[in-house]
Amino acid sequence: MERKYVIGLDYGTDSARALVVEAHTGEILASSVKYYPRWKKGLYCVPEANQWRQHPKDYLEVLETSVREALDTCPSEVAANVVGIAFDTTGSTPVFTDSTGTPLSLLPGFEEDPDAMFILWKDHTAVQEAAHINALCKSSAVDYSQYEGGIYSAEWLWAKAAHVLRNNDAVASKAYSLVEHCEWLPAVMTGVTDVRNVVRSRCAEGHKAMWHEKWGGLPPEEFLVQIEPRLAGFRARMFEQTETADKPVGTLCPEWAERLGLSTDVVVAGGAFDCHMGAVGAAVTPNTLVRVIGTSTCDIMVASYEEVGDKLIKGICGQVDGSVIPGMIGLEAGQSSFGDVYAMFRRVLEFPVRKSLPATSLGGILTSEQMETVVEETCDRILADLTAEAERIPIEESTMIATDWINGRRTPDANQLLQGTIAGFTLGTTAPKIFRALVEATAFGTKAIADRFISEGCIIDSVIGIGGIALKSPFVMQVMSDVLGMPIKVCNTDQACALGAAMFAATAAGLYGKVEDAIAAMNSGFAKEYQPCEARHEKYTLLYERYRKLGCFTEKELYR
Amino acid sequence: MERKYVIGLDYGTDSARALVVEAHTGEILASSVKYYPRWKKGLYCVPEANQWRQHPKDYLEVLETSVREALDTCPSEVAANVVGIAFDTTGSTPVFTDSTGTPLSLLPGFEEDPDAMFILWKDHTAVQEAAHINALCKSSAVDYSQYEGGIYSAEWLWAKAAHVLRNNDAVASKAYSLVEHCEWLPAVMTGVTDVRNVVRSRCAEGHKAMWHEKWGGLPPEEFLVQIEPRLAGFRARMFEQTETADKPVGTLCPEWAERLGLSTDVVVAGGAFDCHMGAVGAAVTPNTLVRVIGTSTCDIMVASYEEVGDKLIKGICGQVDGSVIPGMIGLEAGQSSFGDVYAMFRRVLEFPVRKSLPATSLGGILTSEQMETVVEETCDRILADLTAEAERIPIEESTMIATDWINGRRTPDANQLLQGTIAGFTLGTTAPKIFRALVEATAFGTKAIADRFISEGCIIDSVIGIGGIALKSPFVMQVMSDVLGMPIKVCNTDQACALGAAMFAATAAGLYGKVEDAIAAMNSGFAKEYQPCEARHEKYTLLYERYRKLGCFTEKELYR
Repeated sequence: MERKYVIGLDYGTDSARALVVEAHTGEILASSVKYYPRWKKGLYCVPEANQWRQHPKDYLEVLETSVREALDTCPSEVAANVVGIAFDTTGSTPVFTDSTGTPLSLLPGFEEDPDAMFILWKDHTAVQEAAHINALCKSSAVDYSQYEGGIYSAEWLWAKAAHVLRNNDAVASKAYSLVEHCEWLPAVMTGVTDVRNVVRSRCAEGHKAMWHEKWGGLPPEEFLVQIEPRLAGFRARMFEQTETADKPVGTLCPEWAERLGLSTDVVVAGGAFDCHMGAVGAAVTPNTLVRVIGTSTCDIMVASYEEVGDKLIKGICGQVDGSVIPGMIGLEAGQSSFGDVYAMFRRVLEFPVRKSLPATSLGGILTSEQMETVVEETCDRILADLTAEAERIPIEESTMIATDWINGRRTPDANQLLQGTIAGFTLGTTAPKIFRALVEATAFGTKAIADRFISEGCIIDSVIGIGGIALKSPFVMQVMSDVLGMPIKVCNTDQACALGAAMFAATAAGLYGKVEDAIAAMNSGFAKEYQPCEARHEKYTLLYERYRKLGCFTEKELYR
Repeated sequence: MERKYVIGLDYGTDSARALVVEAHTGEILASSVKYYPRWKKGLYCVPEANQWRQHPKDYLEVLETSVREALDTCPSEVAANVVGIAFDTTGSTPVFTDSTGTPLSLLPGFEEDPDAMFILWKDHTAVQEAAHINALCKSSAVDYSQYEGGIYSAEWLWAKAAHVLRNNDAVASKAYSLVEHCEWLPAVMTGVTDVRNVVRSRCAEGHKAMWHEKWGGLPPEEFLVQIEPRLAGFRARMFEQTETADKPVGTLCPEWAERLGLSTDVVVAGGAFDCHMGAVGAAVTPNTLVRVIGTSTCDIMVASYEEVGDKLIKGICGQVDGSVIPGMIGLEAGQSSFGDVYAMFRRVLEFPVRKSLPATSLGGILTSEQMETVVEETCDRILADLTAEAERIPIEESTMIATDWINGRRTPDANQLLQGTIAGFTLGTTAPKIFRALVEATAFGTKAIADRFISEGCIIDSVIGIGGIALKSPFVMQVMSDVLGMPIKVCNTDQACALGAAMFAATAAGLYGKVEDAIAAMNSGFAKEYQPCEARHEKYTLLYERYRKLGCFTEKELYR
């Protein structure tokens, strides 16, 4: 069989990864990661205000360098035999464009205006606008947020758009349309010059822009102008239809074919969000909960239309037909902090590390930059030691209980005001005991999500973990398996998102009739499977009841 | 005026202090601290089982060495002009004796039996017996615990006595009577040879043995045998009357006059507990809350009989006529952990300290003992830095809320099952923010006690702090003042307990008609007065409401 290649591009928060994959076997030939240069310098962001913006030039520059670097390490015939390319990105990460689909920050006069750039998923400047949208949804005849979990987030398209329009007259008067990051890249690649021709992502618009077939696409004009009068006219200039990511958007335009060193025959697939393509890369099937586990988690399931249909799954992030696998309902949930919970405790322990090191002879002979490296390495070692000691604590002595909401709670039942709590401090409290409680808290947060899916009628008979923590933290994964009382498989690759994009590229290029076939042929298999211990599961089930009690209290009483 | 001297002896948990004081002016001439030699080696104790015992020889040996060392540093005429001596001790710290009042561990065959030794205040081996006593009190026609806060503790005399009698046949068959540490020392000094002649401490027996005039002394025989059948006969062999500590017990017997280098004319005063004499040493007056602040706190007030009378103050540790100042009701409360709360966090931070240090060149060249010293010094420095940084956090950013019950709660409303909780963890949580929350928690625990006194009708118009933390932690004391909205004076001396004993010695020796006169003449004054900031007090009053909410929840829901 002739070897054919596809390129999956995964745009994360800090960097983009290009993955060159053989399209029949899924064999990974090369990969290259490039960090966004302006973002890395901290440009355009205001951390105190939770303003996080990314410049479109960052995205284009790393595209060229990462693809070229990945191809350079492949045998010479590979580039000529690339047949498809696909993109996944973070989201909702929208940008205002002119009528050609060009982000405003690429136009003269707007080059340095953060409001003319992509508004990164985690930007929280639009909290007030989100509250306003939620009030409108609840008082409207139709609750347009119903397929997005019933709570519209400050991280999503309309809140961000309203916030910028309200506060930036220059951008407001120049803005013609809005596109998501995962839509813009395929449009640039295929040479789109009219924003109305940008192929719209079912995943992005269905999960974050309240697009739904039931009400004929986006919410009606009269609803949007209630969000913000300056949104008047946008709906008509935007779109009615969305497409799933298995559909070709077009082929590479000559300019980008040349810049990437590829042929103009290369098919460009539709875009989608990273976790949704990641679930495909992890070989998602119905009744499987796929967890992308990093600083936070994104939890994805797919269900047949027969299983879910029009039924609303309460308290999750969203449910969109075709957002993961075309023809199936994609369901999204997630914990707003997971690895971040451990990072928080690591930062607490960094205080004594910094105070300890200068007391030693190293204090005098290292530059401040070298010192930072020593601090980092020491903290890494401490976290490893903490993990080892926490793992040795018998579950009977695991009597501290924590909640995992240090950055609010995304699901079940979003509430961004919540904070984390740790209970059970005694004269015998130690750092490993606290760390163990935090690991258990993140597992309890997992169980809360799984339980919600189940109580809403979804069946979960296996769990798949992907992402850094899934591969690198056996203790965390074993606790999660014990708490859930379910086996957890861990993907063989740490590049599941880019691999998922490659599967979409191969499908869009016509090598497979449907995404499921690409999954069957190209998946990377599993590195490991964690089995739950029944005895520990029983004990954790009792501890989970205390987690729920503590959670109910902190939610209902402490933070309102 | 001819100079006269008194010696105050303060028996703490780890050591005893002898203080030589001029009896007219309160001028401190000398002091000497001696650690209990057997205790220091860890003999007779089982930390895992919370068994803490002290050998009577420890007490006698340090008495001789500390008094002689203190006198040796004084001008030569001092020893000949000592007119009185008094003892305060920890308590309840009882011991079984034979009919001569000799602790069983001083008799052949019992020298190494921990049950024949003094059972230190913090020994918790009698938890079951305490629960049984509480059940009996609640089902009895008279609740004999009513003047001891309505909850009998495992740390108190009858629980400990019952536990030993039930579990040690040899001790049970030899035991004739029970005495408290603060009663035994004056008895030994005055050469008592019949345990029935031991002068009994109003303070010890009233606060810990359910002695009250209302029911004619100790609880009746039929109640005591319900606690434990082997207590049969003890009541008749023990005592009916108790005395306040201003009354002379006798004069030094020839043997001890010689061993201490003093005259047989020296008057020995009655004994009492350390915090009660400490309150006198700190110049307690009505409407003043005196706080002895260390790992835990002991809070003492005095009130006139007219003010309190027979009225029960709910939820405090006890109320005993004459336990502090004769003729007034002594009221006792306390937080079971105060400095221990900070020590717990220090221990959590010790983990990274230990992991940081060996990475440096010091790891190789220090002995393990030197290494421990480095760890200790580093932790000390970290706590100082934490304090400095916590103090700089604006109160507006002080959004974490903690409870201070890491060793249960003593008052208000004793509950030994409670544990500590910290709420408000976010992505921005740091070690100084947690530390600040813990400092605030200990201040909120203080306010809960003060509020209880006030709601029960006591008036508090000033607060006096004594003990290590009061003198050494301005940040902690300022937060406490701000939370209470009250000024706090800090005693000039860190030897208030021993100074209080000296005041009792001077009164018993006839130099003063009453203890109040000794206080007026001999007090050491105040080193500092903290003034509350009204703006911060208002903000803390709001935070205190969150502390109460968190406390109500953890008390009612989480630990039952």
